[in-house]
Amino acid sequence: MKEKNTAGRIVETTISGITYKPFSGAKKHSYKSKVTTLIDGLKKCGLRDGMCLSFHHQLRNGDFVINQTFEAARELGVKNLMMAQTAMFPVHEPVIDFIKEGTINRIEGSINGIVGDYISRNPLPYPVVLRSHGGRWAAIRTGELKVDIAVIAASASDERGNATGVIGKSAFGPISYSQEDSMKADKVLVVTDNVVEYPNKFQEIRERYVDYVAQVDKIGDAKNIMSGTTKITDDPMKLQIAYDCVDLMDAAGLIKNGMVFQSGAGGISLAAMKYLGERLEEKDIIASTATGGLTQLIVDIYKAGRVKNIYYSQVFDEYSVRFIQNDIGIPADIGHYADPTSKGRTIDGLDIVVLGATEVDTSFNVNVNTHSDGRMLHGIGGHQDTAAGSSLCIITCPVYRKTNPIVLESVTTISTPGDVIDAIVTDQGIALNPKRTDLIEKVKGNIDIVSIKDLKEIAYKQTGGPQKLEFEDKLVGCTKWFDGTILDNIWKVKGLD
Amino acid sequence: MKEKNTAGRIVETTISGITYKPFSGAKKHSYKSKVTTLIDGLKKCGLRDGMCLSFHHQLRNGDFVINQTFEAARELGVKNLMMAQTAMFPVHEPVIDFIKEGTINRIEGSINGIVGDYISRNPLPYPVVLRSHGGRWAAIRTGELKVDIAVIAASASDERGNATGVIGKSAFGPISYSQEDSMKADKVLVVTDNVVEYPNKFQEIRERYVDYVAQVDKIGDAKNIMSGTTKITDDPMKLQIAYDCVDLMDAAGLIKNGMVFQSGAGGISLAAMKYLGERLEEKDIIASTATGGLTQLIVDIYKAGRVKNIYYSQVFDEYSVRFIQNDIGIPADIGHYADPTSKGRTIDGLDIVVLGATEVDTSFNVNVNTHSDGRMLHGIGGHQDTAAGSSLCIITCPVYRKTNPIVLESVTTISTPGDVIDAIVTDQGIALNPKRTDLIEKVKGNIDIVSIKDLKEIAYKQTGGPQKLEFEDKLVGCTKWFDGTILDNIWKVKGLD
Repeated sequence: MKEKNTAGRIVETTISGITYKPFSGAKKHSYKSKVTTLIDGLKKCGLRDGMCLSFHHQLRNGDFVINQTFEAARELGVKNLMMAQTAMFPVHEPVIDFIKEGTINRIEGSINGIVGDYISRNPLPYPVVLRSHGGRWAAIRTGELKVDIAVIAASASDERGNATGVIGKSAFGPISYSQEDSMKADKVLVVTDNVVEYPNKFQEIRERYVDYVAQVDKIGDAKNIMSGTTKITDDPMKLQIAYDCVDLMDAAGLIKNGMVFQSGAGGISLAAMKYLGERLEEKDIIASTATGGLTQLIVDIYKAGRVKNIYYSQVFDEYSVRFIQNDIGIPADIGHYADPTSKGRTIDGLDIVVLGATEVDTSFNVNVNTHSDGRMLHGIGGHQDTAAGSSLCIITCPVYRKTNPIVLESVTTISTPGDVIDAIVTDQGIALNPKRTDLIEKVKGNIDIVSIKDLKEIAYKQTGGPQKLEFEDKLVGCTKWFDGTILDNIWKVKGLD
Repeated sequence: MKEKNTAGRIVETTISGITYKPFSGAKKHSYKSKVTTLIDGLKKCGLRDGMCLSFHHQLRNGDFVINQTFEAARELGVKNLMMAQTAMFPVHEPVIDFIKEGTINRIEGSINGIVGDYISRNPLPYPVVLRSHGGRWAAIRTGELKVDIAVIAASASDERGNATGVIGKSAFGPISYSQEDSMKADKVLVVTDNVVEYPNKFQEIRERYVDYVAQVDKIGDAKNIMSGTTKITDDPMKLQIAYDCVDLMDAAGLIKNGMVFQSGAGGISLAAMKYLGERLEEKDIIASTATGGLTQLIVDIYKAGRVKNIYYSQVFDEYSVRFIQNDIGIPADIGHYADPTSKGRTIDGLDIVVLGATEVDTSFNVNVNTHSDGRMLHGIGGHQDTAAGSSLCIITCPVYRKTNPIVLESVTTISTPGDVIDAIVTDQGIALNPKRTDLIEKVKGNIDIVSIKDLKEIAYKQTGGPQKLEFEDKLVGCTKWFDGTILDNIWKVKGLD
């Protein structure tokens, strides 16, 4: 088909059977500053009733952005919003008010203590959907979780939206959780207290995905952005558990040159990393890679030359933030780290990971979401992802806490199924998953093994067994496996109001 | 709907009105090396007749990968492939044989001299589609250009497909052209001569998008990977044109603190950058950013503190490759740089760019694709993108070359429309686009301006005017504006066989 275009040419517009439009004019492209206020940014993004707003959690307990955003929504009179955060902290207690007044009526994202307690007593009209970090990324990638406005906290952004968490007074480490949100959400609003000269030298989020940059006074409280969990426990029982973890890794033959290990920020996990660092020195071994969260402990192992690469998705302390400002290493966003729909993930090569639990059971199922009274108090985080990606997934916990058995016949909620759990290291001994005959064979003679049933017996004997919960026919939430299937339900406990 | 899942739980699978599958089992994820041979990699990617294979051009005239890939396809007996490269070089002459024997029957991508000459005489059954770098990225992003197998040359990759062009004996700079290909192609095959220890410390292409890593002896010839175009011209006429460009920028008030300029690797463009660097020194000005291609000249301006940021998409010489290995700066992939479908691009803030032309006309239209004899000999590159993104787009050319007028009544092919061209700087004077009254006003009194029609008259007088071409009703190719519309057609010239 021949047509005259605005350049004055009569052009054939059908090329290889497809008809394109004729050229209709060229104009200069320029840019406008995207900087605005939070409330105007939300308005310009078209915020309205029923929308889904997503957030990352890397400002941790110092985060002001979630509360500020819903305050702005309240001011705009917008109702029934869905909140799709990657995690929550005590600082988000005002979310209870946003729920009470109808600003928020639905949550798909990790829940924390105070808000979790409230929802456990007062279920939302829509059950809370709990996903792992990798599972959440996949849900956004596949469209299962549709985000209308991605609200992305940044410790620095230029006026065009090139944004980072690496620099600035509220620095928290690379923005690892929000790239997929920025690519899939209809609108993207960067929120920062630090508009820097263009071009921002760090750019985990790039202007090509950003609609507006909301400038606020403060995105967070620096002292609470840094996790309180990076202090190594001084509880002798926990230290012993941590030490036993390293003995188990060693007996399993996994402490070897080129090993890849996952580092976390929990007390026992951190202690285990400390002992692992010492073991690397003693045995003169050089690990390949530390993945996961960065802490001073890991940076020091790296500086000592005992691990060649730090391949991290979160940064937990100020020391580590300062460190990566000068040596960025290999930041891995959560998709790279754990997206189960991808063609390859960082965690698939993990030799060892040490994780926690609120409960474990004799099928090696792990609960990290609910307490034994049935309240939904924690998120899944990377628990599922790293458990499935590792050769040796170690769960650490005491056999019982006060009057509560921790090792049970059956966990209250399955967060991570026993199929991918290899060992449970407790204060009363180490149980190995009987399916891991290779592992049992390998450590035989070097490590004392107890049966998980024996641990359960100890727990029940010391505590009188678990409290019996009765449930109402009302869903509080559900846990999903990272492939999107329903792993477990969390029902409302009778009498918990 | 309640169902029992394989974790033994009876779960409600209908959550907020959507029914999900019940959990059906968890397994450990591990990884397998993706390393294979080129021929097996193509087989495993399911190569078959009629598929589209994409390539980047950053190995330039040293590239072995395009030829090796089609040799493998020939060996596999696969026919009628589409080639979607980002550019071609003389080294790709064997493509003519692949066309003759039916391995390749369609090209959507920049064409170079030798192959272009052949196709101009022997049109393919499908017209060649010429797009700018940004336009190509957008065509892949929107699905207009569907890639079956992205073949991505890398100077280093680990066994899982984390790949780079920054390090290794065939280093060529960050892989900037292929991220969108890797995300949109059905299959992704990294081709490297350098399988490095996991994890590769540079990762422009990440394992999550990579299916296989083909290991070959050599991906290219290092001395030809580095462009021959980074030598500054010593032709006094061209040097004068370059100098006049800088005077024009200066008169336009664009040589100022915070300026953003585009650097290229062509002879005059490079000389203009040299003079610009000197002008920055003389006037004690500090530019904000140099975008585009990196050369020693730009690195030296950066080292001298005359430009704060190097924000580059290509690296043209060995000096610059060595430099970025230690100071990566801000690499900008082509989407970030120039994707017209994005929410913001690096080039939208460009103050100045200096570009070349094979022809210009009195409507300020520019031809970079065909010669005056009608042969299609060059690609568009970033010409359209930077012209439209810049405040001042300067085209440099002589008014005539031997017996050919370069300034014409009407260009043979429109590559970039006159609407986004601001100035034409020639050996016979500077013409400004009459639509740019603001610019004309600004430079008045400081710069001598001639009319484009006068330049055309000089050209016609000295050469006797352009040769008259007659065309057959047979399309050789078309140029597209970066929004996907048909800008111009390239028809077969009568008698050119």
